Amino acid sequence: MTDNDNFQNLAQQLIDAGRFIDRQGWVPATSGNFSARLPDGTIAITVSGKHKGHLQLDDIMLIDADAQSLDGKKPSAETHLHTSIYRRFPNAQAVLHPHSPNAILVSKLFEKEIVLAGYELLKAFHGISTHETSMTVPIFANDQDIPRLAQQVEAYMDSHPPILAYIIAGHGLYTWAASVAETLRYLEALDHLFAYELRLQGVKP
Amino acid sequence: MTDNDNFQNLAQQLIDAGRFIDRQGWVPATSGNFSARLPDGTIAITVSGKHKGHLQLDDIMLIDADAQSLDGKKPSAETHLHTSIYRRFPNAQAVLHPHSPNAILVSKLFEKEIVLAGYELLKAFHGISTHETSMTVPIFANDQDIPRLAQQVEAYMDSHPPILAYIIAGHGLYTWAASVAETLRYLEALDHLFAYELRLQGVKP
Amino acid sequence: MTDNDNFQNLAQQLIDAGRFIDRQGWVPATSGNFSARLPDGTIAITVSGKHKGHLQLDDIMLIDADAQSLDGKKPSAETHLHTSIYRRFPNAQAVLHPHSPNAILVSKLFEKEIVLAGYELLKAFHGISTHETSMTVPIFANDQDIPRLAQQVEAYMDSHPPILAYIIAGHGLYTWAASVAETLRYLEALDHLFAYELRLQGVKP
Amino acid sequence: MTDNDNFQNLAQQLIDAGRFIDRQGWVPATSGNFSARLPDGTIAITVSGKHKGHLQLDDIMLIDADAQSLDGKKPSAETHLHTSIYRRFPNAQAVLHPHSPNAILVSKLFEKEIVLAGYELLKAFHGISTHETSMTVPIFANDQDIPRLAQQVEAYMDSHPPILAYIIAGHGLYTWAASVAETLRYLEALDHLFAYELRLQGVKP
Repeated sequence: MTDNDNFQNLAQQLIDAGRFIDRQGWVPATSGNFSARLPDGTIAITVSGKHKGHLQLDDIMLIDADAQSLDGKKPSAETHLHTSIYRRFPNAQAVLHPHSPNAILVSKLFEKEIVLAGYELLKAFHGISTHETSMTVPIFANDQDIPRLAQQVEAYMDSHPPILAYIIAGHGLYTWAASVAETLRYLEALDHLFAYELRLQGVKP
Repeated sequence: MTDNDNFQNLAQQLIDAGRFIDRQGWVPATSGNFSARLPDGTIAITVSGKHKGHLQLDDIMLIDADAQSLDGKKPSAETHLHTSIYRRFPNAQAVLHPHSPNAILVSKLFEKEIVLAGYELLKAFHGISTHETSMTVPIFANDQDIPRLAQQVEAYMDSHPPILAYIIAGHGLYTWAASVAETLRYLEALDHLFAYELRLQGVKP
Repeated sequence: MTDNDNFQNLAQQLIDAGRFIDRQGWVPATSGNFSARLPDGTIAITVSGKHKGHLQLDDIMLIDADAQSLDGKKPSAETHLHTSIYRRFPNAQAVLHPHSPNAILVSKLFEKEIVLAGYELLKAFHGISTHETSMTVPIFANDQDIPRLAQQVEAYMDSHPPILAYIIAGHGLYTWAASVAETLRYLEALDHLFAYELRLQGVKP
Repeated sequence: MTDNDNFQNLAQQLIDAGRFIDRQGWVPATSGNFSARLPDGTIAITVSGKHKGHLQLDDIMLIDADAQSLDGKKPSAETHLHTSIYRRFPNAQAVLHPHSPNAILVSKLFEKEIVLAGYELLKAFHGISTHETSMTVPIFANDQDIPRLAQQVEAYMDSHPPILAYIIAGHGLYTWAASVAETLRYLEALDHLFAYELRLQGVKP
């Protein structure tokens, strides 16, 4: 495939992902942003300010690995959180950031992290093959200063075992995986796992 | 566009908005009403008594800024609440009033107002650019005497900072913005924000 | 219209109502049954044992006012509850009986009746024009002996003001109105009203 | 029908069942597995690792009654739970195993079993003709060693009255019936019955 074919292909995957994510109620208003990495290391990412359930090809732009626009469009303010993930995780080929209500509620009830343990559904995540394990999803304070927020995330990652997702408090969820499809599966699994914990705490999805 | 083109265009937007709003479960039975302002100051508004999820062109009528019918049809009893909003807010081009269950439940648990604070999703509203802020949605007692209810709302607005939405207790939500599309985004955002607060109170959407 | 046209028309309305009701999750498995009265007093009603979300014309049969089959098909065991309603309420032209979870939960939390008061949505019901009123929905114990259950309902109705709906405990809801469309509106309104009360009791739809 | 016709027909039923089950939110990520028995005793079953909401013909494989692949494809790790059910229940022609959130939550709140009693909806199950009965769904501890888990289930069944479904804790639900369609009805009914009990316990679906 040419670079342009790759872009078109991934852009369409992000558009379709947005429709699915919107049907779940995870991107109210114009919230959320999505990206996918091309073989040459450039990144297809949603532009700023669109409803993620109704994306069109023109709403996906191209940036380089340092978050610089390559086509003159304006990327989301949170682009640096995406590039930071791609830099740290060579196998991450897609990053999805919805404003899932369950993730937001989790951030209200759990302080620094939520630990998911004992569920068969944990096997949805790469590298997990039994329910007899646990997975930690850290929760970071929200910050409108995205480089500062990215730094906070980086500092955590420098001093902890690898993570597969994180929550920004009162804001939403970030997760990433080896393809858009796999990242969607992570979102589905995380939403269910968060829902189990919330319901057991008396907070109902 | 001719006046008639403008009407047809906005009427179609209200019809489509009704389908979306109904799919969310926010206009049970024949509840709710919607309007949009034309460039000449007249207002397209839903007629009385139809299901808002199945509107047809004939179910949208034209009134003037004083709520007088311009085409012989009978507007909703609550039309004066719409015209009062358009009069006060020159930038309001659409008003949507669903009977969102979350708004109704909020009115049962919060007395005079609900304050939404600390959520990233607050940035969905015009003029808000950080989660480090709060937004007040006042709650008014329901009243079958609509002019009297409109007066109650007006009196509040005269003595408070500008608001973006209000709740009528046990009844529903009013919100408005610069277009039908933007007002739909407000509805989505408000429903999520109300849901967060309800769930944290132990009341589950 | 000929009698046959009337039957076909009402049968199609019941089929469409079933699709809507199933999408709401109100007729799990093969539960529920629906009917509509023809101008000549005969009644189109769902046959026994079909999934109400996937009805076909052949799944609607014709009975007389005494619940006798007019076409050799076997009506639902609960047919006598339908005919009893048509006998008592001359304006009832349709009866819908879903197994709405909210109605079932209401029957677990409220003993003999649920009183719905103060909601704007009460205006969805014929004859109610203000939220400043209340509406009582009685709850009857379930009974596999349908004639005996019908008698219990009749006895209640003989000694109380007219009702618009009733619940059978642990089973479902009966409501009726002047057309299939209006009865669907009643179902929507009742489900919302029950949900408000359940959520305020800490039981979440 | 030829054996191949039978396979194609049942495979399509499993594909359609998967779409329905996915729309209910019961098979997040690639969770769950489904099977149906052919007249000759061989079994059509979903292959390992696919999303059950988007199955294609190629994702259904054929095994014999001892769980051996007959077409070179790799069956789900949980295949032995399916074959064990078919062996014990001659009338079982389909087995559906979703990761229904309600079943998972039930396993968190009820220790060894959940008893469903007094609901009209119990009549959805073969052999039950009144609400005045109860039905026990046992809950087994999860185990990645599937033969060992199958043994645990077998031991229970050897010493208890026949069951129609069981839950694996933190994992999901198994149920079976005389056809794919009937088993889907069982799933719907069980999900509603679990939801009633969860809501009455203060845990909200």
